[in-house]
Amino acid sequence: MSPKITTELLKQLRQVMKSPKYVQEPIQAYIVPSGDAHQSEYMAPCDCRRAFISGFDGSAGTAIVTEQHAAMWTDGRYFLQAAHQMDNNWTLMRMGLKDTPTQEDWLVSVLPEGSKVGVDPFIIPADQWKSMSKALRSAGHDLVPVKENLIDTIWTDCPQRPCKPLIPLDLSYTGVSWRDKIVALRSKMAERKVLWFVVTALDEVAWLFNLRGSDVEYNPVFFAYTVVGMNTIRLFIDGDRMMDPAVREHLQLDSTLEPEFKIHVMPYGSILSELQAVGAGLSPKEKVWLSDKASYALTEAIPKAYRYLTLYTPICIAKAVKNASETEGMRRAHIKDAVALCELFNWLEKEVPKGTVTEIIAADKAEEFRSQQKDFVELSFATISSTGPNGAIIHYTPVPETNRTLSVNEIYLLDSGAQYKDGTTDVTRTMHFGTPSAYEKECFTYVLKGHVAVSAAIFPNGTKGHLLDSFARSALWDCGLDYLHGTGHGVGSFLNVHEGPCGISYKTFADEPLEAGMIVSDEPGYYEDGSFGIRIENVVLVIPAETKYNFKNRGSLTFEPLTLVPIQTKMIDVNLLTQKECNWVNSYHQKCREVIGAELERQGRHEALRWLIRETEPLLKVQ
Amino acid sequence: MSPKITTELLKQLRQVMKSPKYVQEPIQAYIVPSGDAHQSEYMAPCDCRRAFISGFDGSAGTAIVTEQHAAMWTDGRYFLQAAHQMDNNWTLMRMGLKDTPTQEDWLVSVLPEGSKVGVDPFIIPADQWKSMSKALRSAGHDLVPVKENLIDTIWTDCPQRPCKPLIPLDLSYTGVSWRDKIVALRSKMAERKVLWFVVTALDEVAWLFNLRGSDVEYNPVFFAYTVVGMNTIRLFIDGDRMMDPAVREHLQLDSTLEPEFKIHVMPYGSILSELQAVGAGLSPKEKVWLSDKASYALTEAIPKAYRYLTLYTPICIAKAVKNASETEGMRRAHIKDAVALCELFNWLEKEVPKGTVTEIIAADKAEEFRSQQKDFVELSFATISSTGPNGAIIHYTPVPETNRTLSVNEIYLLDSGAQYKDGTTDVTRTMHFGTPSAYEKECFTYVLKGHVAVSAAIFPNGTKGHLLDSFARSALWDCGLDYLHGTGHGVGSFLNVHEGPCGISYKTFADEPLEAGMIVSDEPGYYEDGSFGIRIENVVLVIPAETKYNFKNRGSLTFEPLTLVPIQTKMIDVNLLTQKECNWVNSYHQKCREVIGAELERQGRHEALRWLIRETEPLLKVQ
Repeated sequence: MSPKITTELLKQLRQVMKSPKYVQEPIQAYIVPSGDAHQSEYMAPCDCRRAFISGFDGSAGTAIVTEQHAAMWTDGRYFLQAAHQMDNNWTLMRMGLKDTPTQEDWLVSVLPEGSKVGVDPFIIPADQWKSMSKALRSAGHDLVPVKENLIDTIWTDCPQRPCKPLIPLDLSYTGVSWRDKIVALRSKMAERKVLWFVVTALDEVAWLFNLRGSDVEYNPVFFAYTVVGMNTIRLFIDGDRMMDPAVREHLQLDSTLEPEFKIHVMPYGSILSELQAVGAGLSPKEKVWLSDKASYALTEAIPKAYRYLTLYTPICIAKAVKNASETEGMRRAHIKDAVALCELFNWLEKEVPKGTVTEIIAADKAEEFRSQQKDFVELSFATISSTGPNGAIIHYTPVPETNRTLSVNEIYLLDSGAQYKDGTTDVTRTMHFGTPSAYEKECFTYVLKGHVAVSAAIFPNGTKGHLLDSFARSALWDCGLDYLHGTGHGVGSFLNVHEGPCGISYKTFADEPLEAGMIVSDEPGYYEDGSFGIRIENVVLVIPAETKYNFKNRGSLTFEPLTLVPIQTKMIDVNLLTQKECNWVNSYHQKCREVIGAELERQGRHEALRWLIRETEPLLKVQ
Repeated sequence: MSPKITTELLKQLRQVMKSPKYVQEPIQAYIVPSGDAHQSEYMAPCDCRRAFISGFDGSAGTAIVTEQHAAMWTDGRYFLQAAHQMDNNWTLMRMGLKDTPTQEDWLVSVLPEGSKVGVDPFIIPADQWKSMSKALRSAGHDLVPVKENLIDTIWTDCPQRPCKPLIPLDLSYTGVSWRDKIVALRSKMAERKVLWFVVTALDEVAWLFNLRGSDVEYNPVFFAYTVVGMNTIRLFIDGDRMMDPAVREHLQLDSTLEPEFKIHVMPYGSILSELQAVGAGLSPKEKVWLSDKASYALTEAIPKAYRYLTLYTPICIAKAVKNASETEGMRRAHIKDAVALCELFNWLEKEVPKGTVTEIIAADKAEEFRSQQKDFVELSFATISSTGPNGAIIHYTPVPETNRTLSVNEIYLLDSGAQYKDGTTDVTRTMHFGTPSAYEKECFTYVLKGHVAVSAAIFPNGTKGHLLDSFARSALWDCGLDYLHGTGHGVGSFLNVHEGPCGISYKTFADEPLEAGMIVSDEPGYYEDGSFGIRIENVVLVIPAETKYNFKNRGSLTFEPLTLVPIQTKMIDVNLLTQKECNWVNSYHQKCREVIGAELERQGRHEALRWLIRETEPLLKVQ
């Protein structure tokens, strides 16, 4: 990796920062956050502006360029990568270290008195604008919105915003029509006494209309906004994709509909002016509902007194609770995914000892097996295929510079998943293709105990996921071990592999209570820097639990694993398991054998079936 | 209980609400919160203004009186009591029910346009003022501070503010001199770049000066404020108690001291004017540190730009971590407390079958046995002595109207504690003096499993207590049971039995991380409305834990029970315990037998000793 030379680019940026063509008054600093106008986790190439200006392309980072300085804030995962990818024009601000200033403090320390700091109001969320603006103002500076993105003005070969065809999903996948979703949304709006709802997150637009896209890698979404009124629906979207007859029929664009279900298709870029028009026409007590995370530009389009902001939108909450069709789809997707992984692990077992399989080859092979399955669309995230010390890098993905060969002497960790038309998968298995050491087995078994503790937990209806996080750590804690990430995240249904508003993490307090139909991951781990990484991840469905009693009639919940891939018994120290844990593993493996075995049989994959049978032999615990 | 007749009082209050003697302009509503000027949990009688005006004397409630209405907001614990204690002049606002308006919404709905709402600025915390004031302003009303408390103007027989003698604590109790505490506080102030620190919580003043008082029942504190500068100390306190030679010597009031340790004693009532003088004399960048919870009056004395507000003060955090002398004191106090309880339970065992022991008699007997112990000062809270259905009322204390006779047919729950000069205790035991049913034993055993799960938990240094809360519930959850309160609270050292900033509760997220030397309670329970209550509570000390490994060199923590009172084995269904849990109970009882047995022996309490020996027989678990 050689750093990107940015001298010329920074010169150009500093010129436009003073150009009356783009700014009313010269600005003394320009902020380039990661992130697009929808606060997406994954970016389209045209939105990777921070990577363009700096060379640093990690998933998290904020660049700030002043007349004299260029500085990049990023977290511990990316210190090394950022240092390699950026040239000497840049100062790396290592977040989390004691002496690293915040962006606000740094700006105050370097700016001349009464400076203006610019930012694209479409990229910065309203809540971040608020705190940044307050801090700057109290030091005598101003945060100002710069309408045209200044990076775009100097990015001559900027890729076009993707505008790929849409995939309409019929009722057999979604369970609920978009009309019914609009009706439900309007009823939530009526409850809160709001007249308008602005949909800004891409997965919320996709979910609402039962449409999918491929504008962004891994997330089957498309660039669009929606504004839903009590009697109108406006969909802001570009390109000729709305000419597709299947899409037109799906959205009933050419039918005679009741006016309140008529979708008005408008250009993507007209959202701001349309919203401003809505804002200007409001009477007292008429409110517009927006997410807390919507961009400053859209939030400002609505006068403050008319805004109704919430952390989670009603779509986010409805989307998290999967209906029967979605749940069945997720089950099917996970069965296919398990077939692909049985094939992969059977193949790896034969090939790894030859010394020819690298992390990249293994990842590609996993994708190949997945792509053979029905309704496969794409991967759901960049495959983490890591062996030995690479396994300890929690957000690792193999690149040629780091690519390591799998061997019979090292632990292999594979965290991967796919998008199928019927569901989204995300599974981690940790395998040894030789003989694991007693210590490796010990650590693996603690992680397994944590995984089982969450998966088998019974808890009252309405419990928030963060209250389950410690169950995953208890066995590790007993021995002085731990892992530095959350235990689980929400998973979309043929949508984003990471979705809110539920999850299992000690870091959050604002998660929504778990309820039946929600789907989360259960993925404790243990990482030993420089030697190995262990993680065991299933996607699990929240289901009602039968209990002996029923306090206050609240009802109880538990989890059903959707992921059905054997957990390598070779890595388990059975003596460390309780009988209950041992029974859990055996009945899990029994289910893998039955369900995945039948599908392998049906697909005629006999070698993988034999592998599955062998890997699901019951554990024997000596009493 | 007959309601208090408040017609005349309300008439008088409404008169003073318009009297130019007290208000610049007439006010249309007056808020009477619970609470004193220090945000204390327990009130002196002179501060029970809300009880005086309404008759309702529960621990939580806010009264608002307008020209036409009088309304009382309280929570589910007190719906019945408030309804009984208040006459028809009052409307009960049942908080937590869907149709109950907030105080702000109610005020807006009943007030004429442009009203003024008054409140005593010393009683309302600054953060509550802020939100209330904002809500009223946005509806066109004003929240105004009324200097003189209007209840006091009509409360002709208002008791005097207590002004009892002070108890100086020497180094053998406190471990650190008040001078060293001042030095440590100033170093924290220097770290945060503040010049002044205002101590408003009574237990913080008491802790800082190693003094105790008895102005408030149960909490050994005294009415005072303190303002610490980098070179000055001002103590605001009334009465001739500063004439006591022991106090003068303790505070070195008559010694020649370096000026920065010279304590300037000033009248309690002069805090506001002194603080205003401090505020007026500040130069830019000079800050004054106050708690978020300090009163609006004191917070306003400091211009906004000069305020430095935090949720927890440095004194609150330092006070929570007990030093070796305090820990030793707490151990001694708990040994004495256990002696008293062994005597009590031995006595109850003999007396209950006679049918002559009521809840009140049992509570009095507990106090009698405690008062026989060295350095006993008073109880640390109102004893919860409850049998049968009364046990299910979580905040029950027996009064003649509810007083029930203990019997061999009902579960008895005793939650009690005391203040000794060397420490504060708080212990709950649940006993059966006949034969418990299988169901009662089952529930008790789940609660015990939860108690042990927390007490024996090992967790990384820096873990927040709320992450341990689910451990206490897991066994109950497995059977569909739960309890609707937190699992533990911080405990002071001869100070408040409930103290921040640590605890074990699902309800909070802002607790400070646990560290060695902190002391909390571990008190899961189970309550069956109308039939029984179960709770098992020990006070436990956070101590370092030895673990096999040590991830990232963080170190681990666990708990050591300070409470050493047998847990009734008759109530335990041994078959429901794991071997590990069984071992925990046996080794806990072994320690009770050794430590408390030796003290009973020393005190010549042979009958109680025989009771202890019998009650600490090891459980036998059939493998």
